[in-house]
Amino acid sequence: MTLDKYTEVYLPKIKHYRQDLSKQVEPYLPLIKNIDPSKDEHFNAAVEIEKLLSPKELKITGLTTRELIDKQLQNELTAVDIYNAFSKRGALAHIFTNCAMELFFPEGLERAQELDDYRIKNGGKLVGPFHGIPISLKELMKYKGKITNAGYVAFLDNIITNPDDESLTIKILRDQGAVFYIRTSQPQTVMHLDTQNNITGRTTNPFNTKISPGGSSGGEGAAVALKASVIGIGSDIGGSVRVPAAFCGIYGIRPTTKRLSGLGSLSGGAGQESIFATQGPMTNSIDDIDYYMDAYINKGKPWLKDPNIIPLEWKLNYQLDDTITFGFLTTDTIVDPSDSIKRGLSYVQDKLTKFTGKKCIVKTINLDHELMENAYKQNKQIYGTSKPTHDEILNKSEEPILPLTQVFLNFANENGNNILTNNIVKEQTKLYFHQLFENESLDFIIGPTFTNVAEVPDNITHWFYSSMFNLIDFPNIVFKTGLTHDSNVDLQGPSNMTNYNPNDYINAPIGLQLTAKRFEDEKLVACVRLLDEVLGL
Amino acid sequence: MTLDKYTEVYLPKIKHYRQDLSKQVEPYLPLIKNIDPSKDEHFNAAVEIEKLLSPKELKITGLTTRELIDKQLQNELTAVDIYNAFSKRGALAHIFTNCAMELFFPEGLERAQELDDYRIKNGGKLVGPFHGIPISLKELMKYKGKITNAGYVAFLDNIITNPDDESLTIKILRDQGAVFYIRTSQPQTVMHLDTQNNITGRTTNPFNTKISPGGSSGGEGAAVALKASVIGIGSDIGGSVRVPAAFCGIYGIRPTTKRLSGLGSLSGGAGQESIFATQGPMTNSIDDIDYYMDAYINKGKPWLKDPNIIPLEWKLNYQLDDTITFGFLTTDTIVDPSDSIKRGLSYVQDKLTKFTGKKCIVKTINLDHELMENAYKQNKQIYGTSKPTHDEILNKSEEPILPLTQVFLNFANENGNNILTNNIVKEQTKLYFHQLFENESLDFIIGPTFTNVAEVPDNITHWFYSSMFNLIDFPNIVFKTGLTHDSNVDLQGPSNMTNYNPNDYINAPIGLQLTAKRFEDEKLVACVRLLDEVLGL
Repeated sequence: MTLDKYTEVYLPKIKHYRQDLSKQVEPYLPLIKNIDPSKDEHFNAAVEIEKLLSPKELKITGLTTRELIDKQLQNELTAVDIYNAFSKRGALAHIFTNCAMELFFPEGLERAQELDDYRIKNGGKLVGPFHGIPISLKELMKYKGKITNAGYVAFLDNIITNPDDESLTIKILRDQGAVFYIRTSQPQTVMHLDTQNNITGRTTNPFNTKISPGGSSGGEGAAVALKASVIGIGSDIGGSVRVPAAFCGIYGIRPTTKRLSGLGSLSGGAGQESIFATQGPMTNSIDDIDYYMDAYINKGKPWLKDPNIIPLEWKLNYQLDDTITFGFLTTDTIVDPSDSIKRGLSYVQDKLTKFTGKKCIVKTINLDHELMENAYKQNKQIYGTSKPTHDEILNKSEEPILPLTQVFLNFANENGNNILTNNIVKEQTKLYFHQLFENESLDFIIGPTFTNVAEVPDNITHWFYSSMFNLIDFPNIVFKTGLTHDSNVDLQGPSNMTNYNPNDYINAPIGLQLTAKRFEDEKLVACVRLLDEVLGL
Repeated sequence: MTLDKYTEVYLPKIKHYRQDLSKQVEPYLPLIKNIDPSKDEHFNAAVEIEKLLSPKELKITGLTTRELIDKQLQNELTAVDIYNAFSKRGALAHIFTNCAMELFFPEGLERAQELDDYRIKNGGKLVGPFHGIPISLKELMKYKGKITNAGYVAFLDNIITNPDDESLTIKILRDQGAVFYIRTSQPQTVMHLDTQNNITGRTTNPFNTKISPGGSSGGEGAAVALKASVIGIGSDIGGSVRVPAAFCGIYGIRPTTKRLSGLGSLSGGAGQESIFATQGPMTNSIDDIDYYMDAYINKGKPWLKDPNIIPLEWKLNYQLDDTITFGFLTTDTIVDPSDSIKRGLSYVQDKLTKFTGKKCIVKTINLDHELMENAYKQNKQIYGTSKPTHDEILNKSEEPILPLTQVFLNFANENGNNILTNNIVKEQTKLYFHQLFENESLDFIIGPTFTNVAEVPDNITHWFYSSMFNLIDFPNIVFKTGLTHDSNVDLQGPSNMTNYNPNDYINAPIGLQLTAKRFEDEKLVACVRLLDEVLGL
């Protein structure tokens, strides 16, 4: 029997890659010598990690970007202090959830030291708005001098040798003082709302190892929730920022496309332009999203390097009107969400109705089933357009096709897509939603991010709660409700699920999706600030 | 022998349509009783029309939008005065060049009267920034209560009965006080850089009836050059604003897409999104373009109704830096332009070099032939994507396929397009041009709009001088050089032409194309003001 190409050529590469990754966390293993995550199938990494930290580390990693910048300016913290606290959490986060694809602690430390030295030599001046801020990066962002594999075994040799090819976002953030030490996991083909690949395996949810952290930016979801970084850079073409944000109980924005640059990202989706991907920051505080967008857009000016980016200023600290109208979306008309999601929606609706700080009008919105069904069909076909490229890359290494990869590859229309129909239905849907906002005088739509709270991986097949907004390019933020799944009351699963077990989802946070009209990204941020207040977070 | 569908069903409709059009100009026919255009194959309508006007009419139709607004505010002119002067020119323009597809003089007059009445009742107040301004409209813009056929015989019954379906631009301009009375001609399928259809026939060049006015907004080109309106609304997906602007000696902007709305336009290109069409105003003065963009964008706020439009403010009276660098493009590396175009480029280059009012640096730029060849191939294939829709509409009426329609239909790849390759090459080309601007420190590129000055129709097959910029969505303005074709010196035609006769192009203006980076639309306007000064226009 001869070995196949995957076994012979690629398994050794995978082994080597994993060894490099494991080696990075070796110094941290003594910290967890008394913990055995395998003893609890619902292991809660978030709780366990906090037990392993000093009060100072806890305090530092609880600060926002602006606070960390201020503490440095006041000489209360150094970049090295900040780095040490976050990187310790990063190591533990990876040990417990397998959220990293690459770790480079020595470089991170060196960079933090260099930033501290810069301040000493420059009268306390900061390099830029991210001076000393640990930012985690989704693996598909090309990083100079490092392998970028985008979750494909075939790209395990793909070292970014030309610095010009590096992700523009990485360049902008580095120029603004960011500290990098962790690149986070993503699924094979990037087209799962889960995080599993053949290189580093599966990433788990930070609150319950039985369930998924979401995906495709699932490594970011886990890393940010566990405070491995202040800000994580995800990307989203069908829910890949928002689903992990919801599953991991953090904030994540999918801004209107072409405000943040994806230049220098590796993906099998190149050339598919009916739905554009966008990057989006994922954070523990809504202030961090506002801060990030302001610094990246207004100071980073990505349009100077990326001709696809719109030179539209970010309006920091956007102010909402005195009266706000919310449309509540409880079903996409195709799959009804679980009890926990429904409970989250009712809870927020109730809190808004009772809120006295602002006039909040609440409505229920009902979508046209026929339109939505056709929109979902076209939506999937559009994703399927890039199947030939994915097939080619997968075939190159002969790596096993993972179950959720197969789900995605099946989106492609066997007889080839009709791109004209795809786009015409997309535009109809876009106009339909625009007019829905207009006719109902809506400021925002609140709805599910996914059919359920953080889900067991096999069930993550229905993308439409998130992907409908990629189709029409209306921006969203996932926000926290403060609630978690309750196995005693959330007895009913999503309508497409037959194997729902309410006990699977212990500790799973209930995150919901807020949507505004195109280019109203700042208004979304302002509204999440309001929601945090309304919900007492 | 039985009659075919076209002859039996559609020819009577065409006859009826033409009769309606002719009837509108009947009252004006006595004006031209001593003129027989057919006696001169190079008949110059522009010169002849001016002989038929009173000094007052000449004066009014020589004013810019801002001047016409000021004259109304100063009570020196009424909307009816303005309407009468422009509409007389419009009637004559149509008689000589066949530039209209629909004329509705009584409605225009009624509207002008209504606007005057409004001022009387409202203490002299204007309805909006286009109060009393005659604006001509390309036929494909859906007009409530009227047929919109987009140059297709099959759409001769397509009356826009629901006012909501009307072109958003028409609604915005009407709300701002514009006066409509002329809808202008366009070619079959809209995809010619010439203007001929089976409904109203061929439109001719205002300076020389033997040559084309360009297209597809060729009716606008002729109408605006002959001052039937102050501003003409064209649209451009491959050169359709710029080629007629160049051929007719006027200004025309193709702004970055998604600043002006095309909502409510009729075309066979729906769903083709790799290259977006955009509207663009065509004018006799660069000030009118600046004025139009400011009023339409900043006051019209098209994004409130059209979710595809970017809420990016128009910067009126943009100021250029003290030093400006121009890259001169003399060939697209595929077809070399004619002597007249080369002479125009040399002339502008020379004037810029000698100009002392600002530091103008002039460079020659050379494009990568291999990239450009591939880009043009993909460019044509992208246009060809919509062939099935065009075929279907053409088949419906069985109207004859015009020669330039066949050229366009042949763009389609027989084996079906690879949309991924189309878009990947597009993005490579976009980045290539962006980096060309950056590496050469260019502010602008000046180059041909087309391979020749206004051309005889059959030769209008090479689109790439204009369409390369649709492919990469870099904005352009066509500007006047002040020169015209000279049959004594412009002896050599474009390199793809075997039947060039320098005597064909008598009086043809030499218009060139100015290009800036994406979203630098205002900078283009400012530069054309500078060029007007440099060239003494």
